[in-house]
Amino acid sequence: MNVSIIKIGGNVIDFPEKLDEFLYLFSRFPGKKILVHGGGVLASKFGESLGVMPEMVDGRRITDKDTLDIVTMVYAGLINKQIVAKLQALKQNALGMTGADGNLIRSVKRPVKNIDYGFVGDIQEVNVGLLQTLLDADIIPVVCAITHDKKGQLLNTNADGIASELATNLSKKFKVNLYFCFNKAGVLIDEKNENSIVPLINEEIYAELKKENVIHSGMIPKLDNAFAALQKGVNHVWIGKAENLLLAAKGKLSGTTIERHKYDLY
Amino acid sequence: MNVSIIKIGGNVIDFPEKLDEFLYLFSRFPGKKILVHGGGVLASKFGESLGVMPEMVDGRRITDKDTLDIVTMVYAGLINKQIVAKLQALKQNALGMTGADGNLIRSVKRPVKNIDYGFVGDIQEVNVGLLQTLLDADIIPVVCAITHDKKGQLLNTNADGIASELATNLSKKFKVNLYFCFNKAGVLIDEKNENSIVPLINEEIYAELKKENVIHSGMIPKLDNAFAALQKGVNHVWIGKAENLLLAAKGKLSGTTIERHKYDLY
Repeated sequence: MNVSIIKIGGNVIDFPEKLDEFLYLFSRFPGKKILVHGGGVLASKFGESLGVMPEMVDGRRITDKDTLDIVTMVYAGLINKQIVAKLQALKQNALGMTGADGNLIRSVKRPVKNIDYGFVGDIQEVNVGLLQTLLDADIIPVVCAITHDKKGQLLNTNADGIASELATNLSKKFKVNLYFCFNKAGVLIDEKNENSIVPLINEEIYAELKKENVIHSGMIPKLDNAFAALQKGVNHVWIGKAENLLLAAKGKLSGTTIERHKYDLY
Repeated sequence: MNVSIIKIGGNVIDFPEKLDEFLYLFSRFPGKKILVHGGGVLASKFGESLGVMPEMVDGRRITDKDTLDIVTMVYAGLINKQIVAKLQALKQNALGMTGADGNLIRSVKRPVKNIDYGFVGDIQEVNVGLLQTLLDADIIPVVCAITHDKKGQLLNTNADGIASELATNLSKKFKVNLYFCFNKAGVLIDEKNENSIVPLINEEIYAELKKENVIHSGMIPKLDNAFAALQKGVNHVWIGKAENLLLAAKGKLSGTTIERHKYDLY
């Protein structure tokens, strides 16, 4: 069985029209699938309206008790349920979840080293059996960026990390493809030219592109994560724009596909 | 198979200690079970902190767009996920849901007659197959008071009504008992005396108690709902305090049990 894990971020979620367009494309996406979403910008805006200011360190949100309540409300409540209701209208049997639901994802609270991130989770375990039960029942899990520690504590958890962990754990049983929708058309040779997409990257090409400084800064952790997922058994990872998702599903070049082995290219 | 549907309201949810105590009792409750919860007081408080004042008509919340967002955040996000995480810590495989998730409960927006209740749902259909899939997988559904219209709209929906509809629909396949936890020890002969519980009510006794004015005002719709559920096949309905739930499960008199036929009494 093939399973596709598709992750969307704030660049889709924060714009109702873009979200609707994406959900329509997602509904046309063939095969078994799982949607993973964040919602950080909406959570920040909402928190500010309550007088809770977002505090970020290196792009990561510091999650105190109030912030945890806010992200739980916004991710697991507002965004997750609006997505589920919209997918249901598109005849997609979506079911919204956090990592606490059915013990889908168990995390530990990130240990305090230099920075205390607060109620932030590092993923420990994924309940593959539950996902299989749901996928077998033709249910589409819609997973938001909240997990738990199985001791009663909810934990704010990076959505990219959730997508990767679901993918690597499912790849023990299924052929899994992982799709990251983000705000660029893929890995670009020229950042200002959306047509300069690198269509395929493997470890050899990645090393070259880093050496030539084509790939740098924010793209490096994304690609490192992608290669880590491939090494743990994921079939391929795709990075591109949400609106090109269906092209990607059809195997058409529409973003950057990341594959482990060079022979995949030839 | 026996299934128990247990409904808790604000008198439990609004007090963290009471909620913890209840969840412990719920975790000890034997057999297949489903938890249904509201959360109105917390939603009102939270709405007020955002400048959205609750507007009630005959105890029913008028649900405009902002209020719908708030109840979705508070019921489906904050309360539902905290309950799920706490139950998971008690080794209960809880999975939180709205009626939109897996199309569990389809409603229609209440038609406007004298009053426009806004985004309030009247239940049309329950997905018994999904509940069966979950219960078969030893999952405990935790259902909050939000449904959808299958056209993309979430709807605020009375939690008592959800509990009754889940119970009546499941009773076509299972032996179903319905438990309403509320702020009194049961139906009382003397409202001021918590020991004056009427232990068993059937239709005959109900008629007498109404005639004698022992049962009046707010208790009448509750009991009418209970009898409606019994007529649709529910085995029995129990009304009492959350802290007496386990006694009720063991068949000990601890609240008011409502049964349809008088021969049940003898």
